[in-house]
Amino acid sequence: MKGLDPFVLKDLLKVYLKEDLGHGDITTCHLPGKESTVTAVIKAKDHGVLAGLPAVSGVFSLLDPGVKIEALADEGSAMVDGTEIARVTGPALAVLRGERTALNILQRLSGIATITREMVDLIALTHTRLVDTRKTTPGLRLLEKYAVTVGGACNHRMGLYDCAMIKDNHIKVAGSIQAAIKAVKNAIPFTARIEVEVTNLKELEEALQAGADMVLLDNMDLATLEQAVGQAREKALTEASGNITPQNILAVAKTGVDYISSGSIIHHAVWLDMNMKIL
Amino acid sequence: MKGLDPFVLKDLLKVYLKEDLGHGDITTCHLPGKESTVTAVIKAKDHGVLAGLPAVSGVFSLLDPGVKIEALADEGSAMVDGTEIARVTGPALAVLRGERTALNILQRLSGIATITREMVDLIALTHTRLVDTRKTTPGLRLLEKYAVTVGGACNHRMGLYDCAMIKDNHIKVAGSIQAAIKAVKNAIPFTARIEVEVTNLKELEEALQAGADMVLLDNMDLATLEQAVGQAREKALTEASGNITPQNILAVAKTGVDYISSGSIIHHAVWLDMNMKIL
Amino acid sequence: MKGLDPFVLKDLLKVYLKEDLGHGDITTCHLPGKESTVTAVIKAKDHGVLAGLPAVSGVFSLLDPGVKIEALADEGSAMVDGTEIARVTGPALAVLRGERTALNILQRLSGIATITREMVDLIALTHTRLVDTRKTTPGLRLLEKYAVTVGGACNHRMGLYDCAMIKDNHIKVAGSIQAAIKAVKNAIPFTARIEVEVTNLKELEEALQAGADMVLLDNMDLATLEQAVGQAREKALTEASGNITPQNILAVAKTGVDYISSGSIIHHAVWLDMNMKIL
Amino acid sequence: MKGLDPFVLKDLLKVYLKEDLGHGDITTCHLPGKESTVTAVIKAKDHGVLAGLPAVSGVFSLLDPGVKIEALADEGSAMVDGTEIARVTGPALAVLRGERTALNILQRLSGIATITREMVDLIALTHTRLVDTRKTTPGLRLLEKYAVTVGGACNHRMGLYDCAMIKDNHIKVAGSIQAAIKAVKNAIPFTARIEVEVTNLKELEEALQAGADMVLLDNMDLATLEQAVGQAREKALTEASGNITPQNILAVAKTGVDYISSGSIIHHAVWLDMNMKIL
Amino acid sequence: MKGLDPFVLKDLLKVYLKEDLGHGDITTCHLPGKESTVTAVIKAKDHGVLAGLPAVSGVFSLLDPGVKIEALADEGSAMVDGTEIARVTGPALAVLRGERTALNILQRLSGIATITREMVDLIALTHTRLVDTRKTTPGLRLLEKYAVTVGGACNHRMGLYDCAMIKDNHIKVAGSIQAAIKAVKNAIPFTARIEVEVTNLKELEEALQAGADMVLLDNMDLATLEQAVGQAREKALTEASGNITPQNILAVAKTGVDYISSGSIIHHAVWLDMNMKIL
Amino acid sequence: MKGLDPFVLKDLLKVYLKEDLGHGDITTCHLPGKESTVTAVIKAKDHGVLAGLPAVSGVFSLLDPGVKIEALADEGSAMVDGTEIARVTGPALAVLRGERTALNILQRLSGIATITREMVDLIALTHTRLVDTRKTTPGLRLLEKYAVTVGGACNHRMGLYDCAMIKDNHIKVAGSIQAAIKAVKNAIPFTARIEVEVTNLKELEEALQAGADMVLLDNMDLATLEQAVGQAREKALTEASGNITPQNILAVAKTGVDYISSGSIIHHAVWLDMNMKIL
Repeated sequence: MKGLDPFVLKDLLKVYLKEDLGHGDITTCHLPGKESTVTAVIKAKDHGVLAGLPAVSGVFSLLDPGVKIEALADEGSAMVDGTEIARVTGPALAVLRGERTALNILQRLSGIATITREMVDLIALTHTRLVDTRKTTPGLRLLEKYAVTVGGACNHRMGLYDCAMIKDNHIKVAGSIQAAIKAVKNAIPFTARIEVEVTNLKELEEALQAGADMVLLDNMDLATLEQAVGQAREKALTEASGNITPQNILAVAKTGVDYISSGSIIHHAVWLDMNMKIL
Repeated sequence: MKGLDPFVLKDLLKVYLKEDLGHGDITTCHLPGKESTVTAVIKAKDHGVLAGLPAVSGVFSLLDPGVKIEALADEGSAMVDGTEIARVTGPALAVLRGERTALNILQRLSGIATITREMVDLIALTHTRLVDTRKTTPGLRLLEKYAVTVGGACNHRMGLYDCAMIKDNHIKVAGSIQAAIKAVKNAIPFTARIEVEVTNLKELEEALQAGADMVLLDNMDLATLEQAVGQAREKALTEASGNITPQNILAVAKTGVDYISSGSIIHHAVWLDMNMKIL
Repeated sequence: MKGLDPFVLKDLLKVYLKEDLGHGDITTCHLPGKESTVTAVIKAKDHGVLAGLPAVSGVFSLLDPGVKIEALADEGSAMVDGTEIARVTGPALAVLRGERTALNILQRLSGIATITREMVDLIALTHTRLVDTRKTTPGLRLLEKYAVTVGGACNHRMGLYDCAMIKDNHIKVAGSIQAAIKAVKNAIPFTARIEVEVTNLKELEEALQAGADMVLLDNMDLATLEQAVGQAREKALTEASGNITPQNILAVAKTGVDYISSGSIIHHAVWLDMNMKIL
Repeated sequence: MKGLDPFVLKDLLKVYLKEDLGHGDITTCHLPGKESTVTAVIKAKDHGVLAGLPAVSGVFSLLDPGVKIEALADEGSAMVDGTEIARVTGPALAVLRGERTALNILQRLSGIATITREMVDLIALTHTRLVDTRKTTPGLRLLEKYAVTVGGACNHRMGLYDCAMIKDNHIKVAGSIQAAIKAVKNAIPFTARIEVEVTNLKELEEALQAGADMVLLDNMDLATLEQAVGQAREKALTEASGNITPQNILAVAKTGVDYISSGSIIHHAVWLDMNMKIL
Repeated sequence: MKGLDPFVLKDLLKVYLKEDLGHGDITTCHLPGKESTVTAVIKAKDHGVLAGLPAVSGVFSLLDPGVKIEALADEGSAMVDGTEIARVTGPALAVLRGERTALNILQRLSGIATITREMVDLIALTHTRLVDTRKTTPGLRLLEKYAVTVGGACNHRMGLYDCAMIKDNHIKVAGSIQAAIKAVKNAIPFTARIEVEVTNLKELEEALQAGADMVLLDNMDLATLEQAVGQAREKALTEASGNITPQNILAVAKTGVDYISSGSIIHHAVWLDMNMKIL
Repeated sequence: MKGLDPFVLKDLLKVYLKEDLGHGDITTCHLPGKESTVTAVIKAKDHGVLAGLPAVSGVFSLLDPGVKIEALADEGSAMVDGTEIARVTGPALAVLRGERTALNILQRLSGIATITREMVDLIALTHTRLVDTRKTTPGLRLLEKYAVTVGGACNHRMGLYDCAMIKDNHIKVAGSIQAAIKAVKNAIPFTARIEVEVTNLKELEEALQAGADMVLLDNMDLATLEQAVGQAREKALTEASGNITPQNILAVAKTGVDYISSGSIIHHAVWLDMNMKIL
């Protein structure tokens, strides 16, 4: 189950199943043989990184606790075209009704894990870690962020509630970086960190003096970035963002920045091809 | 509001907002100036097709009915880098808390509409229509399918409940195409159509004789496809599927098939770049 | 489970149980002996058609997965006063708390199946099928429509979402039958049919030319109806509606119409008498 | 709004609307003219008692707070064929989408109020009051019981939670009337009454001595009933039940019993005919 | 399970667990050894009355049906510092995630049962019973009122829905005690009692004559209270309220009043100290 | 609205209202004059700190958006017996139905803010801040923790999801402090801090070396505590816990610890007395 909370996962999966089932599966519920026990195998049809196995178990168990799921590959492992992922055995009624929802999650999550792993590998020899953002598909954030960790990257905050983040629009409203930090820092749980987005070294200095725990160094050129990282050392964690690509990520990491954030590992990920066939 | 039901949309948007807000936005809720009225502009940073405006209104209205949204571009219109999409005016508290959710929907939907439009344009001079599939992001299906229509394509069924579809796995369970069709056709609402997936002309004949309303001609080569289309004429609607690309879509359409389905207009769509800036 | 989706059924049954239980059954939860295992038998006290068994299982299983339900009669079978329907064995706590909800569903559904079967039998030798409408009890539609199928009739659309239907009020808003059909047909999933309500042969012709898949021939006299059926042949499915009674249903069917819709098989059905007694 | 709690009503109406709307009204949401303002009139097509007006307002307001509802008849008033009930003015989008749900409630509730009023009138000159039971349509109980009050009768308990009731099955589990009453009486809120079902004078005596607040005199002949009423006087409220009909209700009332309960005013009520026409 | 309805309890516990878990327990879900089976013991660290055992079972079962709970003390029994309450055996993942929610309920409920028992004991030799009020912690009422019964007192009404209560503010709105009683009594379920708050003997007389079933004698001195109790004898149940303390409760009971209500047994209860240790 | 997210608050208040309203307020909904406009004043009957005003507005607005709330005292201000807190003007139907829920929140939250303020004042001259714990009333945590901030203290983590915390039971499962920290630190969002509970200086050293961001110094005597604070300086934030009382809090603060956590400011808080009277 890795880091996914099974209680929370179950509630999400119910929402996804309801979206597909509506008032019921009008094909399968009338199908001859629906009560028979069948075995199906889920296979990859492309190469990539597997993510989403706990959701596969979860989907079929919700439809029928008697369905047995046997994992044939490890979460986070590399797949090629033809890799067998899981064997699902149970009443056809449950296997057929859960197929699409299970695959949709698995394909989406594996797509994210795959692109994430590619980026992570590029900076593997540095101390810098790749992180995601809140640019996620509405309704699927928890699973998408889980896939990012399967791919080897780290999560940024999960939402607006678990970390304070002062961005350009907030600063405009508050009047100044300092005013924003002071008010927010004083009010949030002491356990929560506060991050501030800055675009130049002057803003960085203001953020550091006001007590930012983390600084988001937005769209800086490499030279400025390196200077910023030095300036923030021992004062705040540093995060670089802005059009990170496979071409530039290593250079960014070499500035010594602690974290590099990329929205595109989620919002530019495409599905990994898979299918499920009843034997 | 185009074809989106506003009552249904509102409930979905609540789910998306809750995902981001959790127990509350700990930055904005403590920000100096949060009660002040601000105006923000949403802009495209890339070219593509705009989709999702009703969700933008919906998100901000849920947070504060007093927020005013002024559309600056039409749903479905072409955008370039810099196109102003909408002006949002209201209390900073609502504008800042809704920003990410509104953008996430808008960027995802516009990405889908963009890729869909490109495909649709390729077959614009044929009678064939492009349709989507049930390969959608769990939790976002209704909006993703809406984006497909904004892009000019047509929806396939919305879920397992509004159209019967007998695919390879169903046939294996039922024992035969005929057995499956007969039982399902007899049991579903007479208003619902029944589609059958076939992979060769023999299966097609069996499906037609058993009374399929639609046939999904799966992964056929062009010659077989053309023959199948002829065989099904006046008997059933025809749909071609299987690795449809910009390269082959026109050739497929020229077989005379009624519909071409593509999962990739949704699962291979990436986000269109946008941002929102408070003036 | 016949055609009812068990995942969907479970959610509905929870709603019905909560309606009756509120903050808890204050009688049974304090009753001496509530932990003891009891066996109860559900019996018919009148003749009719049995419908609702899956709900009986569902209700008691929700209250306690350990309750065993043994069906003593088949779903859809004929009952007389005294017919034993099911034996329920389990902790008194669950048996007593579920009794009323299980019976309420069973009695209501059996009442619908009974009146439906009577109507269906009257046209059994014709090709015409009896169908229901959306005039159902708010909150119970899925189960009421299921009972209609148990009675031998067919379902019309399940709601406003799974089939387009253009009725008099829609035509008034749209301006013309043609305008309405054209816009709606173009926008809905291609898998969904579109039905148009017409009251005379001129409107019928307009609907057929605009591409209606089905026509609802509303309140036509028999001669007109027969003419309409001929006019629509091979162009659209035909449905007759309007004050269908046991007295006139056969005559209507003899016009050759495909479907006859009746709201009264649901909204004029009354409960079949039953009870449950602990042995 | 009479006795219906508007906050509670709103939540119920949402459930009913969702049942009909599903993922959206695919006809109306694509209809030309859907944004135009229309006026519709709801009319009775049969005689009876009007019940359900608050739900009509509620349904349309949920769809669009801008819809204006003008009642043309009073809740509880007598209607004949042609009586205008309400005028609904607002965007066609809301008027068309709410029509069926509003009518379904109105027709069902008016049907109940009508049959209830007929029964109530028969015992109007006695001190006895007619009451309902828990034999209600799953999902619609609150509104059905409301309709009973509009018809002039009184409600029995609303569910298993607001009054204790010891019936034959409970007694079998507890071992004796006395054991059941003692345990339950001691445990429930002191504000709640406890009713016991008895079938003869001996059981009645046992119930009275054990402190029953109310006694349900089940299926007694008139002579026994009269004796039972005398025996219970000043000790417990009395309720007669069992196959109450228009033919025997006055005779039952003349025994002096305090309440006569009838399930059939709900489960044998049929819909009152009505329609809604856009002007 | 005593008087708590297990179906209702389960739904409440889900709410409490979700409050604590949010998007998941980020400590335990990543912990080495989380799949191992552990045994933990819940112990009291102070003396008092145990209440809440069904919730302990419920919490852990929701997280993992395989967790085994062995009660080591009886619900309602006296505890001292060191008393072992329950042994919990199961996967560390479930045991650690449920710990705080289970303890929070147990400590709060035991705190209430403890203070309630102390008050109940003071009037044990009188016929008067102690009852609670609607002054309960929002969200936890059902369990808090359950704890009151474990402590030996009786519940007043559970909410605004299961008993009518006319208080000073209601009388001001209605114009008079008589007008309020008459309208409410006529409209509510006949199974529900009606209580009226009075502050002097004149109001009491008015309430009794208008048919109050219960009278709340608010803040009367002992002499007046005694007179009021006599005046109400055989006409209505009597309840005394207003600053009941351990010092004055016996004197109040000796006036012969039927019930004494105290909000403070809930809103002035503090938690009983407990902990849970993995062995 | 201070730091409470209004969107989140609204959902919570709905839950609390439903708990009290059930199927509806059977007193007020039948009360003569319920449609009339009334004005009520909420007053303190004891001295303390006011907390909960946003909830008062929220409750009445949910029942009727037309209700006007005028605050007569400031959130967080000191009250004495007689202080007028708010004036509520609107339909009696809404004012009477919301009274108890609004007061229950206000009294509970003000009770917490009052005891919190007393503790905060004792260490006002030190740099140490008082914080709460997760020992909160199930269902009310968000509002209780809000009250703590109104009282001048700071929140600890909101739940199991927004900060990692390794306590004695976690360490037992993981095998060692180091193993637990390493695994958890690596997996959680990098924005989240990790706190470790230690009971002596050896464990402290292990936690610091493994990279704990915060250390919970549990139940240490003052001398050890002071040593621990020194040892952790510049390495981790320090938090002292364990039987903090008004008597010892200043001494604990003087050790230089950053935070002192106290569960009792919530679980030993009792309600502040208040009432609402219609003028």
